[in-house]
Amino acid sequence: MTRIRMSARENLPAAEPVWRIPVARVLHPQSVAIVGASDSLDKFGGRILANVQRHGFPGRLLPINPKRAEVGGLPAWPAIGTAPGPVDLAVIAVPGSQLLETVGECARAGVGACVVITAQLAEFDERGKALQDEVVALARSHGMRLLGPNCMGLISPAAGLALSSTMTLQHAPALRRGGVGFVSQSGALMGTLFVTGDDHAVGFSHMVSIGNQADLELCDLLEALIADDATRVIALYVEALKSPHRFVELARRARVAGKPVLAVKAGRTEAGAAAARSHTASLAGSYEAFVAACESAGVLVFDEPEGMIVAAGVFDRLGAAVGEGGIGFVGSSGGGCAVTADRLAAAGLPLAQWTPATRARLAAHFLPTHTNNPIDLGGHKGALTPQVFEDSIAAIADDDGVAVLLYLMTPQPLMAETADALIAAHRRSGKPVLVVSDTGSFAADIRQRLVAAGLPLVNRIDDGLRVLEAWFRRRRLAVFADGGTRPAGAGPLSALPLELPPAGLLNEPDTKALLAAYGIAVNAADTVGDAEAAVAAAARIGYPVVLKGISRSITHKSDAGLVRLNLADADAVRAGWAALADILRAADGDVAPHVSVQQQVAGVAELILGVRVDADFGPQLLAGFGGVLVEVLKDFRLAAVPLSPAAARALLDGLRLRPLLDGVRGRPAADVEAVVDAIVRLSWLAADLGDRLRELDVNPLIVGARGEGAIAVDGRAVIVEEAA
Amino acid sequence: MTRIRMSARENLPAAEPVWRIPVARVLHPQSVAIVGASDSLDKFGGRILANVQRHGFPGRLLPINPKRAEVGGLPAWPAIGTAPGPVDLAVIAVPGSQLLETVGECARAGVGACVVITAQLAEFDERGKALQDEVVALARSHGMRLLGPNCMGLISPAAGLALSSTMTLQHAPALRRGGVGFVSQSGALMGTLFVTGDDHAVGFSHMVSIGNQADLELCDLLEALIADDATRVIALYVEALKSPHRFVELARRARVAGKPVLAVKAGRTEAGAAAARSHTASLAGSYEAFVAACESAGVLVFDEPEGMIVAAGVFDRLGAAVGEGGIGFVGSSGGGCAVTADRLAAAGLPLAQWTPATRARLAAHFLPTHTNNPIDLGGHKGALTPQVFEDSIAAIADDDGVAVLLYLMTPQPLMAETADALIAAHRRSGKPVLVVSDTGSFAADIRQRLVAAGLPLVNRIDDGLRVLEAWFRRRRLAVFADGGTRPAGAGPLSALPLELPPAGLLNEPDTKALLAAYGIAVNAADTVGDAEAAVAAAARIGYPVVLKGISRSITHKSDAGLVRLNLADADAVRAGWAALADILRAADGDVAPHVSVQQQVAGVAELILGVRVDADFGPQLLAGFGGVLVEVLKDFRLAAVPLSPAAARALLDGLRLRPLLDGVRGRPAADVEAVVDAIVRLSWLAADLGDRLRELDVNPLIVGARGEGAIAVDGRAVIVEEAA
Repeated sequence: MTRIRMSARENLPAAEPVWRIPVARVLHPQSVAIVGASDSLDKFGGRILANVQRHGFPGRLLPINPKRAEVGGLPAWPAIGTAPGPVDLAVIAVPGSQLLETVGECARAGVGACVVITAQLAEFDERGKALQDEVVALARSHGMRLLGPNCMGLISPAAGLALSSTMTLQHAPALRRGGVGFVSQSGALMGTLFVTGDDHAVGFSHMVSIGNQADLELCDLLEALIADDATRVIALYVEALKSPHRFVELARRARVAGKPVLAVKAGRTEAGAAAARSHTASLAGSYEAFVAACESAGVLVFDEPEGMIVAAGVFDRLGAAVGEGGIGFVGSSGGGCAVTADRLAAAGLPLAQWTPATRARLAAHFLPTHTNNPIDLGGHKGALTPQVFEDSIAAIADDDGVAVLLYLMTPQPLMAETADALIAAHRRSGKPVLVVSDTGSFAADIRQRLVAAGLPLVNRIDDGLRVLEAWFRRRRLAVFADGGTRPAGAGPLSALPLELPPAGLLNEPDTKALLAAYGIAVNAADTVGDAEAAVAAAARIGYPVVLKGISRSITHKSDAGLVRLNLADADAVRAGWAALADILRAADGDVAPHVSVQQQVAGVAELILGVRVDADFGPQLLAGFGGVLVEVLKDFRLAAVPLSPAAARALLDGLRLRPLLDGVRGRPAADVEAVVDAIVRLSWLAADLGDRLRELDVNPLIVGARGEGAIAVDGRAVIVEEAA
Repeated sequence: MTRIRMSARENLPAAEPVWRIPVARVLHPQSVAIVGASDSLDKFGGRILANVQRHGFPGRLLPINPKRAEVGGLPAWPAIGTAPGPVDLAVIAVPGSQLLETVGECARAGVGACVVITAQLAEFDERGKALQDEVVALARSHGMRLLGPNCMGLISPAAGLALSSTMTLQHAPALRRGGVGFVSQSGALMGTLFVTGDDHAVGFSHMVSIGNQADLELCDLLEALIADDATRVIALYVEALKSPHRFVELARRARVAGKPVLAVKAGRTEAGAAAARSHTASLAGSYEAFVAACESAGVLVFDEPEGMIVAAGVFDRLGAAVGEGGIGFVGSSGGGCAVTADRLAAAGLPLAQWTPATRARLAAHFLPTHTNNPIDLGGHKGALTPQVFEDSIAAIADDDGVAVLLYLMTPQPLMAETADALIAAHRRSGKPVLVVSDTGSFAADIRQRLVAAGLPLVNRIDDGLRVLEAWFRRRRLAVFADGGTRPAGAGPLSALPLELPPAGLLNEPDTKALLAAYGIAVNAADTVGDAEAAVAAAARIGYPVVLKGISRSITHKSDAGLVRLNLADADAVRAGWAALADILRAADGDVAPHVSVQQQVAGVAELILGVRVDADFGPQLLAGFGGVLVEVLKDFRLAAVPLSPAAARALLDGLRLRPLLDGVRGRPAADVEAVVDAIVRLSWLAADLGDRLRELDVNPLIVGARGEGAIAVDGRAVIVEEAA
């Protein structure tokens, strides 16, 4: 079976149809028809109608049913064509065999958009895909939009519309309005997260299940939510993007608009990717590239959807920004504080150091031995009064080094007073106050008190950690908002006296010439064709030297014995030449052997820099530690290009082995600034070459001690033909 | 302020008192007195009495109150001495100023044990510690036990006794009886976890808050729970152990008794350790050593307490054992399945491969493209009938490669039928069926249906992952149950022609002699005192050789230039001697220089082996990758000694860089069996030396390619005097 291949290049049609309604109107329709509306909850049309009615859609609701004069207490229309127009949305859940006909009727009746619940289409088999294509073509030819097929509809509290069959709607007391917009490639997940949101006091503006994205796709909805006044935070569940470049552009637009975008993507592992493939027929680019594109564009990637929705709700209530400083952590369970402090520290989250002013304020209620961060309120001096808790919480919130106050609420004395103190601290300080209400089914009144005062609801420390991690990550990623300026002497390509081959492998000398043209240091080298020329080159370069055989057929020079290191004199160079020439003649018999004589470079660290071209996102810069560690630890990071020096530094800081560059066990610190400069220059090279580059490796970049620079001593690249 | 130092050596008193009641009776008392019983819920004595009465203690309940004839509808007694005896437990929450007197009255009245809620004792300041010591001495002198002080009492559903002031008890409908016994160094945490348990259908036998452990300590309760018929699973919250060796012995006893022990320990990071110190005045040994001791003894360490209690509840209902094979994963949310499959794979949890028989059964309802693991039930062929779900769940449960069935329950069609199918699959297959009820506040009836049938309740995937991880970890750790047998030629020490110095540093030759005596390969070496002797030694050993200067004052030989590698001939040896002799004379002027001439060893990997002596747990074996990686990645593992070959292999398998030993990028695989042998031998050496060893390093152990062995080329140790 052939799968739908979603390409990196957006295959937009030559001309967009003139659409009957804009996407914003899909989210805020004034009239909705339910094809196959029924009074039976066993049928899709019945459940959808019941959900819409239960949640009180304020617009016009039109049940379509050829056999009934009335459905759900409303007048029913025998066919969509007989219903009074204009109809903004028609929801369709007919079997596949009737789909084309039904969509045709809607198109002819002037419907603005169809929401197609019907499944077993492109995600199922070839026949389904053919039918889906036909349906889309028909709709487009009429300027009618489609949501789905294989979707679960939409839930738009901002429009008062619950247009979905999901059974969770029947149990919700009311749609909770709020600022979180959610777009999902999984319909069932929308139903689950509707409950998650309700349980965590998360208000939604819109939730949209996009199914197979046959017409309206994730980016259409993302764009509409960025423009939507009711939406302040956007959350996405992604299996594969149809238009990755548009996604990046929209993410940047959201950043400018001050609307945080959160995302979960399936396919981090082969198991997840396989599951996603059979779920919505999606073939995705690499997960690492997705994460890199997101981080560069300011999108916060989460590991799972429920935690994402909880975080979105927190950001909706408290904002997504935290200021300078760390976490001020307070609780009244000594054990809970200790374990959670461990988890914060293990996650690399910064605990604030109290200022002297804070210590002085805490001294009123605590012995000096008991004024750690976290503060365990249970460890106070003397008798317990509300003042102990109120003063302590105020002192921590006021601390200049505290960016966010974390309170771990467990079953404890003075819960209401504590909640009020937290609310007051939030209002007075203007800082985010994250209360983790670790009270299970106990003390629901306290949770409601916090929620009523505008604080968010987080019930498990797992989620609290996700929220904190996202706040501080977003603060770190801010540097990526600025792509920086082109460094002196780093292109543009057109200004350089370089001619790229039309396509093919760039060998080491050619790659180094390209790097050097962008101002990246490379070691001195000379290509020679006989032993005495090698000796002469070595004398010019200075001993010790390296000899590398140049072969068009051998890719891994070291493995083939084509690299001779540390040759100290002319005899060693001659012997080296002889050995390499033998190997080269055996490999490339018909070509006279050529060898590169190079300066031997020593350093304190070896990195690998490179450019990877993702099927979805195009060129991204790679930085990591070299050698077998890359294979085993996968200690590398990717980022969109070009990069500012600050972003390059942030990229390096994300490496697990980063401390090696600071000098471990008395070793000298490496020249990090030189690495940063090389990354920035390479990022401009990658940006300039764009689609012409298939891949590029600088391996290794030898990094000297501080002030001694970083030198590319080997490199290779693959160039492809310019796209037509 | 001085803190209580808990030593590695259990300082047991010379003679244990003759206790009035055994610990089992503390958990199952027949009569309980509440000192300061009150009708006011504002008072500790009032809340405790209300909690006991609410949950219907079947034994004799004796309110003590000098001012009232009746409290809580029961006759009150003016003093403990006037109440009808014998009194098994008396609970005391008086202020510190009255504590000694009250405990004295209890002691004189023949009370079996006092539960002391009173706080601000040893955990607070020196004065509190002195008072606590006095109280303990008084109680001991009468053979009366103490629980606490600074504790929250105990909740014993098995005894029908809710003897705690925690307010969560007032909101619980009833004590849920079950097989989970919990011992906590944090009282507030006991209150929190009581709710967690209730919310997750976890039944407890006993929950005990041990506070400052002034008399009864964690191990006393652990021992009692191992012997307690009502307890099937034991969970612990630990800040610091008073008697670590007893803990290990008891953990092993629990393993033999088939009762899984789960633990959370504060102090994984400095932040958590500081919080724990000011909480219960506990100074702990290293967290890594605790984890190693636990893993070797079969205790499962969790990262947080709520997840631990959820897991304990699962083990109580489904057992802690999983058989051969992997996870069979089923769900009806395609998105949820994909993301969760990613998380399972990222956590290293094994997904089963369906057998051909399973594929054939699934083919009835799914296209071949849709029979992955996980199975997304929503991707079925044709119309949905209960049969689709029932057949699929049965097929997965029956699969021989499936050790545990994981079902991700989201809001979905046919929930009741699905629940019944899962219950049936569990009963027929006898395998653990873990349903993650990811439905929030929706579908409570389905959760109840599962619970009523004996299945456990897990509501978040985070917890589901913890449970799965614990099951498979426990399966892996089973190899540690067998300490193995002493390999031929590995001691015992008394049988060896070796004399250890009374104390001090063992230099490289002495350490290697010790290693060699246990059958660990060391490279050929000879210590010489002049240049020509060095040349002669090199000729005997064979070129190339290494020269190492032997200094009593220099610890890091390489850093001081005292190691010369790869000397290829006599001239190089003479030059090396001269250089080393200069350095040695400068460092140890008054001693004639001595140099070790050694065989140069090449290999495919370098490990570090060692013995670390923890303040709590004594000697543990360390294995890791050498060099700066140890500093940055901390890629090492510890284990109790001695180790069987299977356990040594499991230890190695726990290293992140373990794949390096299999050969990466075409490198040859390392001789893992030789490493395993070296670990086993070193573990026996560590076990034999016991307290005599302060530390030992084999750094590096050079590992050859498969079949070529592993050779210790450097080593050092520190010996201390035998304990009196």
